[in-house]
Amino acid sequence: MSSSRPEQLESYLGGRWSPGEGVETELSDPVNGTVLATASARGLDLATALDFARRRGGPALRELTFSQRAKLIGAVADVLVANRARYEAIAIANSGNTRSDAAIDIDGGIGTLKYYARLGATLADVRLIVDDKPVRLAKAENYQAVHVLSPRRGVAIHINAFNFPGWGLWEKAAVSLLAGVPALAKPASATALLSHAMVRDVVAANVLPAGAISLLCGGAGDLLDHLTADDVIAFTGSSDTAGRIRSHANVLRRGVAVNVEADSINAALLAPEAAPGTPVFDAFVKEVVREMTVKAGQKCTAIRRVFVPAAGQDAVTEALAARLAKVAVGDPRREDVRMGPVVTLAQQAAALAGIRRIAQEAAFVCGGPDAPALEGIDPKKSSFVAPTLLKVEDPAKAQAVHDTEVFGPAATILGYRDENEAFALVARGGGSLVASVFGDDRDFLARAVSELGSAHGRLLAVDPTVADVHTGHGIVMPQCHHGGPGRAGNGEELGGLNGLRLYHQRVAVQGSTALIAMLQSKAAALH
Amino acid sequence: MSSSRPEQLESYLGGRWSPGEGVETELSDPVNGTVLATASARGLDLATALDFARRRGGPALRELTFSQRAKLIGAVADVLVANRARYEAIAIANSGNTRSDAAIDIDGGIGTLKYYARLGATLADVRLIVDDKPVRLAKAENYQAVHVLSPRRGVAIHINAFNFPGWGLWEKAAVSLLAGVPALAKPASATALLSHAMVRDVVAANVLPAGAISLLCGGAGDLLDHLTADDVIAFTGSSDTAGRIRSHANVLRRGVAVNVEADSINAALLAPEAAPGTPVFDAFVKEVVREMTVKAGQKCTAIRRVFVPAAGQDAVTEALAARLAKVAVGDPRREDVRMGPVVTLAQQAAALAGIRRIAQEAAFVCGGPDAPALEGIDPKKSSFVAPTLLKVEDPAKAQAVHDTEVFGPAATILGYRDENEAFALVARGGGSLVASVFGDDRDFLARAVSELGSAHGRLLAVDPTVADVHTGHGIVMPQCHHGGPGRAGNGEELGGLNGLRLYHQRVAVQGSTALIAMLQSKAAALH
Repeated sequence: MSSSRPEQLESYLGGRWSPGEGVETELSDPVNGTVLATASARGLDLATALDFARRRGGPALRELTFSQRAKLIGAVADVLVANRARYEAIAIANSGNTRSDAAIDIDGGIGTLKYYARLGATLADVRLIVDDKPVRLAKAENYQAVHVLSPRRGVAIHINAFNFPGWGLWEKAAVSLLAGVPALAKPASATALLSHAMVRDVVAANVLPAGAISLLCGGAGDLLDHLTADDVIAFTGSSDTAGRIRSHANVLRRGVAVNVEADSINAALLAPEAAPGTPVFDAFVKEVVREMTVKAGQKCTAIRRVFVPAAGQDAVTEALAARLAKVAVGDPRREDVRMGPVVTLAQQAAALAGIRRIAQEAAFVCGGPDAPALEGIDPKKSSFVAPTLLKVEDPAKAQAVHDTEVFGPAATILGYRDENEAFALVARGGGSLVASVFGDDRDFLARAVSELGSAHGRLLAVDPTVADVHTGHGIVMPQCHHGGPGRAGNGEELGGLNGLRLYHQRVAVQGSTALIAMLQSKAAALH
Repeated sequence: MSSSRPEQLESYLGGRWSPGEGVETELSDPVNGTVLATASARGLDLATALDFARRRGGPALRELTFSQRAKLIGAVADVLVANRARYEAIAIANSGNTRSDAAIDIDGGIGTLKYYARLGATLADVRLIVDDKPVRLAKAENYQAVHVLSPRRGVAIHINAFNFPGWGLWEKAAVSLLAGVPALAKPASATALLSHAMVRDVVAANVLPAGAISLLCGGAGDLLDHLTADDVIAFTGSSDTAGRIRSHANVLRRGVAVNVEADSINAALLAPEAAPGTPVFDAFVKEVVREMTVKAGQKCTAIRRVFVPAAGQDAVTEALAARLAKVAVGDPRREDVRMGPVVTLAQQAAALAGIRRIAQEAAFVCGGPDAPALEGIDPKKSSFVAPTLLKVEDPAKAQAVHDTEVFGPAATILGYRDENEAFALVARGGGSLVASVFGDDRDFLARAVSELGSAHGRLLAVDPTVADVHTGHGIVMPQCHHGGPGRAGNGEELGGLNGLRLYHQRVAVQGSTALIAMLQSKAAALH
């Protein structure tokens, strides 16, 4: 019998792997409480690590053209594909993922890398992007302006959320590496095992220049104190933490650029006329249940509020309840299980507290405010939440449902009387990442885009012709803008080449037509 | 003899003019200390004012198409043109402007309005902007995504700086009105007389829908406490105030979008080979002097740091000193005067303190750390700063010059040994609005764009072919991006149609090709 002290996750900083001191966080299996690893960044020299990324990683990446960087990103994807089976096991153990949950995280990351590898190849062998056509600025024809995108010369600090240790890592890194900006990723400690394994493999495969990627396993410590105007922070997580980052003294003093994806109380809206038995009605029910249960509801894009015509509310409620009743909850290693636990006891407590808060204004359709009793599962060592559907009694008065993000398998039904009330209720989320609208009437869908657009970063409109082929409410496609206004943080990630903007400075260049023609000849066009 | 209590500036809120209580600020003539007016927003109901703009102004503007809004903006410009002579007198009295300073502020504002009126007309009779071409998202050809820009449904809070009460007001309002977002402008109190007169004329002319524009004369009070996720703040001013806005509890909690133009220690760079007597050398000297003295150096874009080849430093210094000696400083009402005072005693004290700080690492070429003695001017009642040129002794060691923004007629010369040192020194400004580069060698200018781009929002590159026709280092053209990284605040204003982004939410719409075609048929394209 060997002593089984769990692995201490090392950080990859300054081109080498280093352990922090002691234990800041234990990484556990949320099904049985087994400690899988520990993380600590205590004592690590983050200033030197940032400096290494800036001095080595940045110049090495910027020397490459877009298509060369695209090849690197493709090579990262290849490394991950080769090790996929191991990642799946880690995701199941550390995140409580089912195999299909794990696929969203792992294959989502690989897919995003491959997408940007393809997209980057289309930018050809240049290092500069021209953002528009030159315009004349004065009477003289030979004096013009054009806008170029210039890559930031610092480090991209990627602070990721616990729910996507795979996808979250690579959806950010793919874009910053393509932009020529080195990444320092800080995964959430509780589920960092997968991020750590992936970066270890990529480093071992030696497919990226030194300094192009760094990994910080453990707390952020004094990281923000060492950032400069050249750096950029891309944060995904709670709005409380986002607020601390945005108001951090050095971030404000230096003017460090900050991008935030935070809380979002996303909505799904069934059109007024949608009737049971129609393809759109069925697609709606299927999608709500999928969003509630995939990754045990731990997606920042998941449907939290379900808006249905008041007259049809009972039919929707019954259909949802019937489907939810069939969702087998338990150890995701079991083949029959469709939904696992949330990632930690703390997350379980937060989700249940949120459910209780909403339940003060709503009735339970299924699930409830306590951890479910599950066969063979110790409730003290596990962190399950039952699929929980609530129904608001008085949508005009309810408030908690619009400002409580239950980060678990829970959603709340709200009945609306007419279209305008529906749009107004959806907007009470205070800014969300995504809303989906299901209806047969295309004019209604177009009105929804117009009325809901300003409060969302993405809208999924499902009419009968796409009811079976759409990519889902919660799945973030790299082609599409990811980020929402208000509560969701006003961020902008992904969205194809538009995602490169975060890692570039937009610059107006005013000069002679000859100079501008020279720049254009060395640049790719964004449009 | 009438009692001459100065006018109390009223605020235009909720569709009517109202005075605040008491006096928060006295608005003075910086030449002689005469109090011209007073401002106070104490006791005004800002929550109700915001609500009025949201409920009345927003819907009225959004109901109009882009070309209809463009006509409104053109009508605003016409009102200002008709009253121009009065504005000039106000600018001279309250801002200490010369007539040509006043023209930059007033005609700059009118020009920007006219530019956006023309640009808006090209967007045609639609209310929606499509930002890219649709892309397929899955195997099914009829499922696609497109990005649209959806106008924000709140109020645009325009917090403006004291140096451009005219241009600052309209460069922001033109864009938000074109976007369909009502504006609430808060000019800096010390020079609010011009903003007040302009808005009073526009309101009296009744060219805008009710609620489309509001004006807050006086302190911001509890304004930020009442903002929602639908609102947006566009701030121009000091980075300290920017930090307080960004870290304001309600701004963080609601996720109010914030755009900042803050401190900027802009650079002009003369190419290594540029020799006295050449057109580029002369253009450089002329531009530095113009930037130092126009508006007594009170432009956020003004040249603060002057980088010249060490070998040619003496020639540049002499040429600058000779030109600066000819600048007549005094009461701007006198025809021979080329430069007036800075706007207040407080600004004078801040500028002189900054000069003293830089002087610890630099020698005076001309000017100095004290208010100049001027014939017929009472130094106790006026706020003059002499045109002040400093020369850094040891550019490798100097620090104050890179982080002290003297907001007055002062600049500092730094000699560099080679191109790479020059680029590195310029970047030490920590992010700036603009740099200009003067040289004969177009390859050098292209390298400067590449090396300096990421630290700037705008670059002016002057080669001999544009030496006589360029629009100037400090003049912000509405066609060009205005905003810089880092210390300059990471903002994005103007830049043609790109400026509309701040007032819109970018939304990915995923749906059927039929729906997306329907949206496209009702939308203008941004590119």
